[in-house]
Amino acid sequence: MPTGDRVLVPFDDLAEVAGPEWPFGLRVDVWDGTGDPPADLDDVALHVLPYGVPRAYEALDRLPGVRIVQSLRAGVDELLPLVGPDVVVANGRGLHDASTAEHALALILAAQRELPRWVRDQDARRWDPHFVGSLADRRVLLVGAGAIGGAIARRLEACEAQVVPVARRARPDEGVHAIDDLDRLLPDAEIVVLVVPDTADTRGLLDARRLALLPDGALVVNVGRGSAIDTAALVAEAGRLRAALDVVDPEPLPADHPLWTAPGILITPHVAGGSATFPPRARRLVVEQLRRFAAGQPLANVIERP
Amino acid sequence: MPTGDRVLVPFDDLAEVAGPEWPFGLRVDVWDGTGDPPADLDDVALHVLPYGVPRAYEALDRLPGVRIVQSLRAGVDELLPLVGPDVVVANGRGLHDASTAEHALALILAAQRELPRWVRDQDARRWDPHFVGSLADRRVLLVGAGAIGGAIARRLEACEAQVVPVARRARPDEGVHAIDDLDRLLPDAEIVVLVVPDTADTRGLLDARRLALLPDGALVVNVGRGSAIDTAALVAEAGRLRAALDVVDPEPLPADHPLWTAPGILITPHVAGGSATFPPRARRLVVEQLRRFAAGQPLANVIERP
Repeated sequence: MPTGDRVLVPFDDLAEVAGPEWPFGLRVDVWDGTGDPPADLDDVALHVLPYGVPRAYEALDRLPGVRIVQSLRAGVDELLPLVGPDVVVANGRGLHDASTAEHALALILAAQRELPRWVRDQDARRWDPHFVGSLADRRVLLVGAGAIGGAIARRLEACEAQVVPVARRARPDEGVHAIDDLDRLLPDAEIVVLVVPDTADTRGLLDARRLALLPDGALVVNVGRGSAIDTAALVAEAGRLRAALDVVDPEPLPADHPLWTAPGILITPHVAGGSATFPPRARRLVVEQLRRFAAGQPLANVIERP
Repeated sequence: MPTGDRVLVPFDDLAEVAGPEWPFGLRVDVWDGTGDPPADLDDVALHVLPYGVPRAYEALDRLPGVRIVQSLRAGVDELLPLVGPDVVVANGRGLHDASTAEHALALILAAQRELPRWVRDQDARRWDPHFVGSLADRRVLLVGAGAIGGAIARRLEACEAQVVPVARRARPDEGVHAIDDLDRLLPDAEIVVLVVPDTADTRGLLDARRLALLPDGALVVNVGRGSAIDTAALVAEAGRLRAALDVVDPEPLPADHPLWTAPGILITPHVAGGSATFPPRARRLVVEQLRRFAAGQPLANVIERP
């Protein structure tokens, strides 16, 4: 078999995903990032990086013939300096959307349905039902209209919520409002979901002034970056407002931080992206990329390099 | 205005829902079930019962001219003996579906995303992230294919789960399996959701033998009736299986019951149906029924009386 058909991947169970045509005429080696990389990798042409391990980049040094590197992360800023300018780099765009969107939904439902209360009642062996809130029929301001925002919107709509998407720029045809309209939209929002990256524009997006625009009892949800909310201002509004946060500022939240015990606040420790949705999606992407590679077709998720 | 156009309803804010044509040429009186019913109701032709109050049926005695009674409950067994055989009775079918379906989703996501753990960690001011489960990509056996089952299925599908519906009888065209296939389906189920009524057929549906067929780590969710699960058998399997239950047997669960503290069990105290989804849906139904009544059209949700 000619040089150029050899690939190094982190999964040993791709045959189950790929079906009968596996391995597409390729020579497949496996390194999952634990232990040392295999020897004799000179002729590996495509390398899929291991995910979620400290040594993820360690095989790169041993791959003089590599032409394509596939990361399973959304961001490849750490990777780019490690590979030559002619190497094609693809990222894991989309692999983490379902997980983050699902966690946002879990946080919203937990808050609306008062799950923290029921957990604490269970610990006290107390059966004390009362009428709870809902997601259905609520007006949800969804700030951040990227791929994860779209995945959240689909879930919210299936839950019969009224979704009001907000992005950097308005897209009137799609009902998307501009972030400049936020002050006007906040007073009618029953739930606000933030899924924005950390940029100069988004830092402190929900500050004391904007939090004050929200109606009593509104729920603030954050699955983007903690910096988008002024934490001290949120603590000051806790009780009037509610919040369900997977990301906070600072992270990790110190044990003596007042946010832990502020009323009506639910905190999860930045776990939205890391869930069981990842492994099957990662395998499907890798199989599809190898199928394209074997067929000489362009790969998906290729990064434009400057 | 002629006799026959007068209605007695429990809401005073229907104009907001009904729009400019309100009150459709009707004379509308309001009694919300608190305090005594108004006097002089002889010519009321349509009565919408108040909901969730002990005195819901109390005005019926004062309505000799009533021709239509609208309940906002799904079941009208209590109501039927209280009205004459010629009175048309309509129920609140559909008003509670979204609430119950949403709570089922909240329980599933709470269990998969380990929200009870994060609540307890928050109480201990502990930031200790780890990889969690997901709903996306999971195979969900949905036992009970009525209106609530359908509402659950739509939510699960939006969450990218694989839904396997199970009903009394198979409907192959719709991919619905028969309950007789349950033993064959259980070994592949990662999540089982029960939304069945309490009947001779469903009592003890998940008994020790069937629970044993579920794979390790499977999640059992119940938003139907507690009697569908053998509680002692579930306690015995707790740890190997997980469960998230809004209904249990017995209810209320006594403080010394072992289910409270069995590992991997999340309990909410029968609160699935009672949520903020009800008021807007109830108002929309009432407005639609009054619109039809005023126009001389047949009402929705009319019960066939024996």
